[in-house]
Amino acid sequence: MKKLFFILALFIGNFAMAQTTDDGSSHKVVFQFVSGDSLSQKSLINNLKNFREGWPKAAVEVVFHGNGIYMVMNEKNNFAKELENFCVNKQVKMVVCENTMRQKKIQKSQLLPFLETVPMGIGEIILKQEQGWAYIKAGL
Amino acid sequence: MKKLFFILALFIGNFAMAQTTDDGSSHKVVFQFVSGDSLSQKSLINNLKNFREGWPKAAVEVVFHGNGIYMVMNEKNNFAKELENFCVNKQVKMVVCENTMRQKKIQKSQLLPFLETVPMGIGEIILKQEQGWAYIKAGL
Amino acid sequence: MKKLFFILALFIGNFAMAQTTDDGSSHKVVFQFVSGDSLSQKSLINNLKNFREGWPKAAVEVVFHGNGIYMVMNEKNNFAKELENFCVNKQVKMVVCENTMRQKKIQKSQLLPFLETVPMGIGEIILKQEQGWAYIKAGL
Repeated sequence: MKKLFFILALFIGNFAMAQTTDDGSSHKVVFQFVSGDSLSQKSLINNLKNFREGWPKAAVEVVFHGNGIYMVMNEKNNFAKELENFCVNKQVKMVVCENTMRQKKIQKSQLLPFLETVPMGIGEIILKQEQGWAYIKAGL
Repeated sequence: MKKLFFILALFIGNFAMAQTTDDGSSHKVVFQFVSGDSLSQKSLINNLKNFREGWPKAAVEVVFHGNGIYMVMNEKNNFAKELENFCVNKQVKMVVCENTMRQKKIQKSQLLPFLETVPMGIGEIILKQEQGWAYIKAGL
Repeated sequence: MKKLFFILALFIGNFAMAQTTDDGSSHKVVFQFVSGDSLSQKSLINNLKNFREGWPKAAVEVVFHGNGIYMVMNEKNNFAKELENFCVNKQVKMVVCENTMRQKKIQKSQLLPFLETVPMGIGEIILKQEQGWAYIKAGL
């Protein structure tokens, strides 16, 4: 009986938290970004801003592959400051696809320094979904 | 033994239903719509039409955010009649992102009247996925 | 106690395999393709190539619907050879939406011969997600 109350209390506690003060800590989301288009790039930044304000503690990873890689080059990058702020101060993890790097002959030294790489961008997105992360395809 | 038969009967029953007369009642899907492009808007309408014909009883929610909001404004809207029909007669729920409204300075009174709003469009899509809803990014 | 060791051994075995020699056999992914744009078509081919090299044994299905159907017509198709190679030699399943065929008045005989059809493209993607398949929206 005690156990039942305990479980009930946990349940009610969780529920109340979700409704009133969700800081996002129970949520995990992987964003896919494949676009080379600047409006889509701006839209990704907006998505991340809103998301981080709404759920400051949620786990977030952005996977850049295909033409999405152009958003994370370290030269002529209009979004470098904002991306750095997300990665360094706001716990947004950003990873780049090594297949894309190879196919576009892009070296790690040409990428923004705070990024990590993964062997296969799409594989990374699949692994995350398998682990219960929600999936959002970003871009227009 | 009786119990086993019962479970088996349930299982076979379900299976038979799924194959022959799936009215969609076991399915739940959240569509994301972010495009301001009219071909993408038309494609969303098509998606919903086909979907509703195929699975009249499935739970469906469409989340409009970013430039997707322009599809649900109450002026100069080519799709207002069709959207209303989906919402009012066909149990398609449509919600708009309040972050987007704020950033584009759009009031609730400027939106089609049968819509609801959610604090964060992407958060809504994530919540649905966590609750077992399938996710479809609509648009081209 | 024996049982515990056995479970532990299984667990460690699985883990080691995942880290060192993942042939993809535990992964399942459904790709959605709706674009009529040739850059998006090229990007789908690239996605499939990289994916098959990375995870040769993963289950893969591509659902073509909407304008995505133009990629699998049997005339004037720049990707026919590559698509055939994926389907016939590399266990990539490709299916076309019958709603799309009806709406665009396209007969099965006008499609590449190694494809199958499904009643509703979006329904197929939802069914796969319900069965635990990861979802990737392909295209730019």
